[in-house]
Amino acid sequence: MEPVGIPWGKPRGERADAVRNRAHLIEVARRMVAELGVDKVTMDELAERAGLGKGTVFRRFGTRAGIFHALLDEDETEFQQRVMSGPPPLGPGASAEERLIAYGHARMAFLLARTALARAALDPEQPVPPEGSPSVFHVQTLLRVACPDAATSGALALQLTAALEGPILLYVQNPQESDPGPMPEYLADSWVTLVQCVCRSYR
Amino acid sequence: MEPVGIPWGKPRGERADAVRNRAHLIEVARRMVAELGVDKVTMDELAERAGLGKGTVFRRFGTRAGIFHALLDEDETEFQQRVMSGPPPLGPGASAEERLIAYGHARMAFLLARTALARAALDPEQPVPPEGSPSVFHVQTLLRVACPDAATSGALALQLTAALEGPILLYVQNPQESDPGPMPEYLADSWVTLVQCVCRSYR
Repeated sequence: MEPVGIPWGKPRGERADAVRNRAHLIEVARRMVAELGVDKVTMDELAERAGLGKGTVFRRFGTRAGIFHALLDEDETEFQQRVMSGPPPLGPGASAEERLIAYGHARMAFLLARTALARAALDPEQPVPPEGSPSVFHVQTLLRVACPDAATSGALALQLTAALEGPILLYVQNPQESDPGPMPEYLADSWVTLVQCVCRSYR
Repeated sequence: MEPVGIPWGKPRGERADAVRNRAHLIEVARRMVAELGVDKVTMDELAERAGLGKGTVFRRFGTRAGIFHALLDEDETEFQQRVMSGPPPLGPGASAEERLIAYGHARMAFLLARTALARAALDPEQPVPPEGSPSVFHVQTLLRVACPDAATSGALALQLTAALEGPILLYVQNPQESDPGPMPEYLADSWVTLVQCVCRSYR
């Protein structure tokens, strides 16, 4: 199934040299992240290592956050496909409430496996438009089926998505430790609580 | 009442020249924000306009986001005082559930009045430790009273705080418009829904 309406993925109709530059930049950026860590990747350094002009890098990614956004892109596409057409309960075949719970758990695992990258992909000055966030899209879609009365404005979908992604993107459990400790397990449990509370009160 | 346990506000025991530099930098930064807008404020430009060394600015704020964090600081202290000791339902005197709802509404208004600054104060690479977030603190404190069984791990408080702050900090309703349109009203309504769903299912 085509994930219609999610403007995520490679732009269409790029010129051949632009496509090559993009692939090359992403490859170099990926190596830099693996080698140096996310903090050390800058636009200037990326341009230099890629042997391309700074202008090309800026046009391609817009901001430093755009580099990391592009790196997440392939994983994000694969993740979305599991949601859209993989096995239940993440994919179709389970109830909307079960899918919402499974979506939250899979999404947390996705973000936790890529925390530094996902945080670096945030650009606080250019926040994600909801229609550009696959999570807002999926939560809204499932919420509309699970509890149609709760989902009319879209605000609850936005808040539930923030409840899902915000603890990992905005906050840390213990800033002294790189290991976030028991947070993921508690977050997974309380996501179930949150979804069930909402769905049950609209039944 | 002293907002105990929130490491927000001016560091104690600063040397007199450090205190003066800080006050001067904050004053200059405030003028720059008013004059140029948040995007245009950089560490370098701030150092130059303040007539101080770049090293001093870096030591004081750590990162560019740290500048905006410091600018929010005074407003944040005033806001916290309204929560800790102002009139109900935001301050003490109403039920914990009513205070949680009032807290959410007041917090959204606070962030919406300072959206650009609050977003610029986010540093995705140095996320807020929950103990450094007044919102996590207040939501957790009120949730412990409103529904003690829901609040044991702290994860639900973290998720509700993200549900409250995340839509404003992470997402925009319509990226084409500086006016976020009807989002605030819908968000305010769905915050009530979320709090009531959680509190009622634990009664």
